[in-house]
Amino acid sequence: MADIFLRNDWYVAALSHEVADGPAAFTVLGEPIVLYRDHVGVVVALEDRCVHRQAPLSLGTVEGDRLQCGYHGFTYDRTGACVLIPSQDRVPPDARVRAYPVRERHGMVFVWTGDPAKCETRAPFDFPYAEDAGWSCHTARLHGRFDYRLLIDNLLDLTHLSFVHKATIGSAGLARDDNTTTERDSDRVKVTRWSPDIEQAPAHVEITGYAGRIDRWQIIEFTPASFIWLQVGTAKAGSGGRDASDKDKLLDRHALHIMTPETAASTHYLWVMANKAGSLSETQEQILRDRSIEAFNEDIAIIEGQQSRLDPSRAIVDVGSDAGQIAGRRLLERLIAEDAGG
Amino acid sequence: MADIFLRNDWYVAALSHEVADGPAAFTVLGEPIVLYRDHVGVVVALEDRCVHRQAPLSLGTVEGDRLQCGYHGFTYDRTGACVLIPSQDRVPPDARVRAYPVRERHGMVFVWTGDPAKCETRAPFDFPYAEDAGWSCHTARLHGRFDYRLLIDNLLDLTHLSFVHKATIGSAGLARDDNTTTERDSDRVKVTRWSPDIEQAPAHVEITGYAGRIDRWQIIEFTPASFIWLQVGTAKAGSGGRDASDKDKLLDRHALHIMTPETAASTHYLWVMANKAGSLSETQEQILRDRSIEAFNEDIAIIEGQQSRLDPSRAIVDVGSDAGQIAGRRLLERLIAEDAGG
Amino acid sequence: MADIFLRNDWYVAALSHEVADGPAAFTVLGEPIVLYRDHVGVVVALEDRCVHRQAPLSLGTVEGDRLQCGYHGFTYDRTGACVLIPSQDRVPPDARVRAYPVRERHGMVFVWTGDPAKCETRAPFDFPYAEDAGWSCHTARLHGRFDYRLLIDNLLDLTHLSFVHKATIGSAGLARDDNTTTERDSDRVKVTRWSPDIEQAPAHVEITGYAGRIDRWQIIEFTPASFIWLQVGTAKAGSGGRDASDKDKLLDRHALHIMTPETAASTHYLWVMANKAGSLSETQEQILRDRSIEAFNEDIAIIEGQQSRLDPSRAIVDVGSDAGQIAGRRLLERLIAEDAGG
Repeated sequence: MADIFLRNDWYVAALSHEVADGPAAFTVLGEPIVLYRDHVGVVVALEDRCVHRQAPLSLGTVEGDRLQCGYHGFTYDRTGACVLIPSQDRVPPDARVRAYPVRERHGMVFVWTGDPAKCETRAPFDFPYAEDAGWSCHTARLHGRFDYRLLIDNLLDLTHLSFVHKATIGSAGLARDDNTTTERDSDRVKVTRWSPDIEQAPAHVEITGYAGRIDRWQIIEFTPASFIWLQVGTAKAGSGGRDASDKDKLLDRHALHIMTPETAASTHYLWVMANKAGSLSETQEQILRDRSIEAFNEDIAIIEGQQSRLDPSRAIVDVGSDAGQIAGRRLLERLIAEDAGG
Repeated sequence: MADIFLRNDWYVAALSHEVADGPAAFTVLGEPIVLYRDHVGVVVALEDRCVHRQAPLSLGTVEGDRLQCGYHGFTYDRTGACVLIPSQDRVPPDARVRAYPVRERHGMVFVWTGDPAKCETRAPFDFPYAEDAGWSCHTARLHGRFDYRLLIDNLLDLTHLSFVHKATIGSAGLARDDNTTTERDSDRVKVTRWSPDIEQAPAHVEITGYAGRIDRWQIIEFTPASFIWLQVGTAKAGSGGRDASDKDKLLDRHALHIMTPETAASTHYLWVMANKAGSLSETQEQILRDRSIEAFNEDIAIIEGQQSRLDPSRAIVDVGSDAGQIAGRRLLERLIAEDAGG
Repeated sequence: MADIFLRNDWYVAALSHEVADGPAAFTVLGEPIVLYRDHVGVVVALEDRCVHRQAPLSLGTVEGDRLQCGYHGFTYDRTGACVLIPSQDRVPPDARVRAYPVRERHGMVFVWTGDPAKCETRAPFDFPYAEDAGWSCHTARLHGRFDYRLLIDNLLDLTHLSFVHKATIGSAGLARDDNTTTERDSDRVKVTRWSPDIEQAPAHVEITGYAGRIDRWQIIEFTPASFIWLQVGTAKAGSGGRDASDKDKLLDRHALHIMTPETAASTHYLWVMANKAGSLSETQEQILRDRSIEAFNEDIAIIEGQQSRLDPSRAIVDVGSDAGQIAGRRLLERLIAEDAGG
């Protein structure tokens, strides 16, 4: 079976606040990884399996800049080299666990799961809103028991909002696919949707207090293997859409959706959301966060159901609104094949 | 491995009251099936897997006579044809899920799991007491983690009542197999047991108030793949058995036991029980229902234990009381082989 | 794959008090075994699978010296012979389940899992302290989801006490392996450790009230397949170790650790602990028992973690302190190979 993972890539293994005191275990692409911070707070990522007897290093302790196994005390530096074996003076030169290149940015910890020598060939995903004082951001995570590619499919076809999210962030008018364009380039797929003169979603009525008809835009950009950047918003119908004046614009947001594969059938679902600073009150932002979690749990429910029904022996039918996800799957497959070949 | 399921047959997928508002999911012979009622209450049975991206249709909604997928809104009629795709005007002609022939009778929903073209070659099991005002009926269900054939074996050898059910519906005198006959014909196995002058079962003392010795009859008729009709009763010892006068007859009942395979190792255990109308008070009927559930849970406990111990590498020993179950297994195997061959 | 079990051996299946009224089920080396006591209290061990339809005999009842299946009443004597089939007069001569040689001693029930004809070739493990009024003993058990050999490894390398048990029965000075000797003979591995002038373990300070520096000895003897005898103790530093006078000796104990394989990936962890009679108050003994359970649960946590990380494709590194466990594994492998060959 062909690999479903792009090995040479940066993945978000954890949110920054999840790596605090002591080592923390995360599985990424099926590999057990332990993260910890050294004495100045820099994150280190090692294979979570001691070279001695394969105990999880995540059950150990951080000692200064080093990680000590909780079984017999083998101690590793940030390169994965064992530098101390308490029972004896000599450390065998081959006593070494795998070290993962690691970067921390945007409140998240990225690890490079492929060949470490190649990690400079790509940069971790850049989401400038996370670093821009003009935008108010937060991060969160959920977990789903499904193949991460099903979540990519989900986000590249937002007609699902009318059905999965009709009680939260969707409304009937989003079901149509008439004003949708799909752009493909060598390393991205971009879907642009424009839904003029439709009803507001229930959660958006609640947040904005506006119950009239609206125009809604959704620009979805997939960067393999695990990032989807959404530029989404609403304005009063006919007021100019993204170019509406501040008084007519209702919501204007950026969201980075991240689907880090945990195993072949489970996924870390993480996100960063950015709202224009000052555009929403604290209460409005909190409602938005709460409704987002509700909505993403709605996605998880339907995708876990889908995972349980997957049967490759049964033919499936593609339609027009699948253009984005078909392009996304093709791009991902091509990159995985190239990566495996190289 | 030979198939353990008779594909071309009617199975009870659900009790009628289990299919009410909205779609309901049931697995039968390993196949996910969604049941729903149209606007006049007729039950429809479809494959529980959308042709688009394989989401479970049971997570969707009923719209009039149709079922709409909860993911992207693909909508199906009772034939399984997709008749609406909200994102576009055109519906591809091959957009279709499997539709199962379905019949509702006796308070139960029957589905035909084989070739739909053959569904008229057999009728769903007929249990006339369920439709007869002279009999008071109720239905119920349990669930067991075992191969459905073990439950057939269980019911074709009622010597187990003396052991499994000694605290409920059994008594020591039922352990003997002296007055038992087994009849085999081309599509049924019938076991007739006569236990004269034995003690009452505890539950029957409780229901009838009679603690003296009794005669007990048990007529067990297996109709493959999943129906066993029990005609059972008790009369005061020596009063004539089934022909005893009303004053000497204590219990006179028909029970249809149904073992619908869910998967190869799990079973829907359903039943219809019929007591002569007016022969028992409301209180007595309730006790009978409660003790039946207790007793059938006793069966489930021992059969799940048996399932956990099954080891085909260990020889088993057959005895005289196995005649019914051996005949039942042979008949079932023959019908499965014929069905697969045809 | 080579067998990981030594079949022809005595294993502790249960603690004596676990076999009381009625049959009790235990799985040993993957085999389901039912234990019961006859009318004078002698333990019988049979295959927990009726010869008739493979129901677990442990769901049945003890009738005098015999065990009756709870399904159809087949009744077995201590030899495993079926002696009664309630439904008929005749018992087929091949109606027989496997009977396991069984011995009860030291408050434990030993079963022989191999060829019964060979059971006299070895004796169940002898732990004389359990029968000696000069020693105060207790037994207990835990359960771990790991290969039993990982627990043997654990006990043959006690440098782990400094890390796994630093809050209970370990201290930093035990991490060194300078004064350790490993002796191998044809059927045992013995590791002797001497740790002079080290700090007390927290649990031992609590028990003895002595917080000064100590000398500690640990003599570990592995007798395959599943017994490790520990002779351990502490004395005030420089007072003579095992030869210290009573006033300087702090703890002086024998412990038999037993790792009975349940399945290839789960283990019954049982033990007998012996303290010199009168050397500890009731309160001190209770603290010792409580801290032992805490400590052994610490072992289970790290070993279950280790089991979850085992990856035979990843190289491991051996060091000097592994001498005991390497010798133990080699001895066990040799005995298993000889046993399978013979």
